[in-house]
Order: sequence, then C-alpha cells, then structure tokens
Amino acid sequence: MIEALRFEDGALLVLDQRALPAEETWLRCGTPADVADCIRTLAVRGAPAIGIAAAYGLALADDRPAAAELLRATRPTAVNLAWALDQVLAAPDPLARARELHAEQAQGDRRLSALGAELFAEGDRALTHCNAGALATAGYGTAGGVLRAAWERGRLAQVWVDETRPLLQGARITSYELERLGIPYRVITDSSAGTLMARGLVDRVVVGADRIAANGDVANKVGTYPLAVLAARHGVPFYVAAPLSTIDPDTPDGAAIPIEERDSDEVADGLPALNFAFDVTPAELVTAIVTEAGVLEPPYSLRDEVHTSGRPRTAD
Amino acid sequence: MIEALRFEDGALLVLDQRALPAEETWLRCGTPADVADCIRTLAVRGAPAIGIAAAYGLALADDRPAAAELLRATRPTAVNLAWALDQVLAAPDPLARARELHAEQAQGDRRLSALGAELFAEGDRALTHCNAGALATAGYGTAGGVLRAAWERGRLAQVWVDETRPLLQGARITSYELERLGIPYRVITDSSAGTLMARGLVDRVVVGADRIAANGDVANKVGTYPLAVLAARHGVPFYVAAPLSTIDPDTPDGAAIPIEERDSDEVADGLPALNFAFDVTPAELVTAIVTEAGVLEPPYSLRDEVHTSGRPRTAD
Repeated sequence: MIEALRFEDGALLVLDQRALPAEETWLRCGTPADVADCIRTLAVRGAPAIGIAAAYGLALADDRPAAAELLRATRPTAVNLAWALDQVLAAPDPLARARELHAEQAQGDRRLSALGAELFAEGDRALTHCNAGALATAGYGTAGGVLRAAWERGRLAQVWVDETRPLLQGARITSYELERLGIPYRVITDSSAGTLMARGLVDRVVVGADRIAANGDVANKVGTYPLAVLAARHGVPFYVAAPLSTIDPDTPDGAAIPIEERDSDEVADGLPALNFAFDVTPAELVTAIVTEAGVLEPPYSLRDEVHTSGRPRTAD
Repeated sequence: MIEALRFEDGALLVLDQRALPAEETWLRCGTPADVADCIRTLAVRGAPAIGIAAAYGLALADDRPAAAELLRATRPTAVNLAWALDQVLAAPDPLARARELHAEQAQGDRRLSALGAELFAEGDRALTHCNAGALATAGYGTAGGVLRAAWERGRLAQVWVDETRPLLQGARITSYELERLGIPYRVITDSSAGTLMARGLVDRVVVGADRIAANGDVANKVGTYPLAVLAARHGVPFYVAAPLSTIDPDTPDGAAIPIEERDSDEVADGLPALNFAFDVTPAELVTAIVTEAGVLEPPYSLRDEVHTSGRPRTAD
C-alpha cells in the first residue's frame, strides 16, 4: 500500500514526494513547525493529504492556537487544510481527532471511488491531471481512487497522465502509483490533451480538487480549466472527485478562491516567469462532482450539501 | 542579429538550437547527410528554417534526386521542407536558388511582420507558443517577427511565452530572442494560458505554423489547438503568422496533414508516453492568417492564394 503519511512513536512520518520516484525517503516531524515546512515545500501535497498532515501537526503542538496559525498560513488554496485544523482545534483530544479524520477520509475516498467507478464503461480511456491518488490523500485517492476502482471493476482500459508542469506530479507521482497498481498508462505533455480528445482517444476526464465553491466552481492544479474547456468542446465527460471537506460553503464562487502564486523559478530558473499553482474551472463545465455522499450534478448548490463541519448531512 | 543558418565557404553553418541558450555552437554541414542530421535531431527547427536548410543541403549534393529524397524524409509535418526542395530541384543553379529562397523568405517575413503589427494596439499583451522567431525562420521571424514589429511600433507591452513542452522552445529560444530584442516577457507553463485569459491578461495570441491546409486548418506545435479553443472562449484574437510557403494547396484540410510522432523519451524518460509533436487547429478558430501577401480572414480558401510555387499571385 502506498501512503503519504504515518503517525508513529509520537511523530508524523511524511514520505518526501519531492524525491519520488527516484527515492523513497521518510521525513520525521516532531513539531508543528516541521509539519508546516513539509507542507510549504511540497514534501507532502494534495489537498486531502495536507489537511491530514496539518491535523497531526496541530496534535503535536503545545501552543495550539499559534500552531494552527502557522499551519493555516502554509498554503492558501486547499480548503481541507483550514477545515482539518478547525476540526482538531474543536476536539478535546487532538491526536484522537487527527487519527479519526485520517481514517474517515480513507473510508470516504473508498466510497467516492466506488461511486465514481459506476460512471465508467468497459474499455474507457481516462485522462487525469496532476496527482489525486493515494499519495495526495488519506491513502486510496480521489480522482486516482476512481481510476483504481474503475480498473478493479473492469471498466478502465488505460489512463492518459498529464505530466503536470512545472513540478511533474503526473509524470513522477501518478505514473508511480499506476505502475504499482498495474494500471496501463501513458504520460503526455499537458498541452497534448487537446489533440488526443480531437482524435477521440479520451472517454472521460477525472481530476481532484483543492477547493470547490458553493456554486460548484472548482479550483485545482493549473491546467485543469483548459482540460474542462476542451472536454466540453469534444463532448467528453469531465468529473471532479473530492471529499466533502474540499467543498467550502463559505466561498460563494471561484472568484473568491485565493489562488496561490508560487516561485517563478519552479517554471524557468532565473527567467522572468509567472507561476499560478491553480486555476478555476467554472461549474458549467463540470459534468459531475463525485463525493463520498453521492454523485452531484449541475446545477450545483453545495451550501446545502455540507454541514459547516464538512461532513455529509444525515439522510432525511 | 540572431540567425539560425549561414552559408559560408561551401558549407552550411547551423546554430545548434538544442544547446541554446547555454551555448552558441555552430555546426558545419558539408553534405546533404549532415544537413539531414541537423534537421532530424532539431539542431535546426522551425518550418521556414528547415526549408531553407534543406534547400542549401540539396545545393551541396552530387546526386540531387537521392539527396532530395533523404532530406524530404527527415520530418513529415512542415510543408516548407518539401516546397523548398522542389524549388531547388527545378532550378538550373541550385546554390543560387537556395540563396535566393533564403533572401526572399527574409524579406517576406519582414513584410508579414509589418502587416501583423498593424493588428496590434498600444499596451497589448500577446501570448505565443513555441518559437517562430528569427531562429525558426530566415532571420526575422513570423509570429516572432510580428511581435518584434509590434514592439518597434509601440504596440506591444509584454509577451507571455509558453514554455512549450517537451523541448522547451519557448523557455529556451523565444525567451533568448526576446531578451536580446529588449522586449519584456514572462515565461508560463503551457497549461497556464487558460487562467491568464480568464483573468483578462492576454490581448492577442500569435503563433507560427508548420503547414496550413487549403481550408485554413493549421498544423503547429502541439499545444496550439488548446490555445485557439481558449482564445475563442475568451474573445481573444488568435493569429497565425506564416509565409505563403507554409500553405499547402494540395492538402485539403487538417485531417490530411501528417502529424509527426516523436520519441516518447522526450516527454518522460523511460516511461510509457505518447509524443505528438504537432496538433491541428481548425480554421474556424483562426481569426486571421498573416502572410507576406496580406492578412487573410475567414472563410479561408487558400488554394487560390498561392501558385503551386508557393509565391503570391500577381495582383490582377
């Protein structure tokens, strides 16, 4: 089993994803500051995974309000981070709550993956962007989990993996996961998706999310929005797979989502560059949002889909 | 002046673009086979430049039909290559014709660049993909020439440079040219263009072409088609700048253009990958085609725009 995080002997162990796939190195985090460093430098990445990492980081704190502030400031776009911190802050036993969140999210991912797999048909070739697999999450995956579940049910023939510049999470991490799962894949440059769709080689697009606004607008790794525009043009279903904790009922729409701008050297070392890490896909281009509580379809009105806690409503 | 090619002392000198911007190395080609190697391995690239290189290569041949066959087989998509070879094959003095083609194309590029610049307005921020500047052409540029001419006329504020994976012709070559011309630019990942357009940061897109079909469909570096789709969605004019020699009246539409598939290791070394080097942008998405004979607008019927020689018709 591939996993991004383990809590052992009073410390959070983080698999250093910057070094994958060449090296599998575990970093030991004994303090909130250690965890904050891992999140800021992308040793751990993926909205659900950084939420869980932050929860454990907060559980390691002596001064919890200060630690929460430190961790909250590491990355602005993924709402799971703030959500997980709020969960742990409100809990009587922080470490127990962090462990519980970890387990709940793992269970939720399996459930949403099973629901997402039902949308697939035998022989499908799916395209994904960045990494939303086991390493981006609690250990199973959101978009990657849907692909895995579809594969296990005989409903997936092949995955097209966007390499995902500038940090190549697709070529480095998604390919590594798919290789270990035995799922056939081919890596492509991000700008090849258009010609593959035009040639009829893509049956579905499935991606994760860093934050979903109440109206269904989706922030995800930069390059997601062009995929959605191309998918709409070619009649290819475009799915977003994400836990309810990724939905932010307090963000009305995509324009209100803070988009992280990262160091220009990630793009072109030493040259003038602009490096938005995420983009926003308008809800109108999203065929379905796959969550652990069900598959949502437009028109999206997600304020009603989540408690402020981010957990599913009890069925009426 | 930046140039890709020089003919001196009975040999073609090729600036090795694979090593740019780190090193400026000139390769000496004394035979058609040397030139074919330079084209095949991308030491020289860009549709107009490989046409001129091939013309000189043929002029170096003892056995011209055999050399033409060798050179013609190097790369399939750019039609300038076949066109230039045919021009030299038909000429009584091959070297004189090669030199003449070189000079004609340089003159044509200046003319199309001046025409293209007229489409710009003060303060424009233009986005370009790959490299269609001096190094891709006879020495001035097509899309890059339009940007240069717009800058000289005070009609360009800044260029967004798509890095252009997998071989980074944007980040390596276009940035190198713009730096030397003193034109402000910023490099972006190819998948960032969508969010820049959505934010209103792009006023025009201008790209080159490797082959333009009779109906106006355009083959260019992979990633061009997504840009055109996004530009249409955001109401951003999308211009193709290319000499008439890039128009192939014998190719009815984009589906008939052979698209080169290159080594998968260019994308992801050692992993399964798919590497189409070009894509096709349908004519409906092209706001204008800027040629040395004028600015063409839809509906395109380009069979009438060129002689079989690829030269402009004489005005009636």
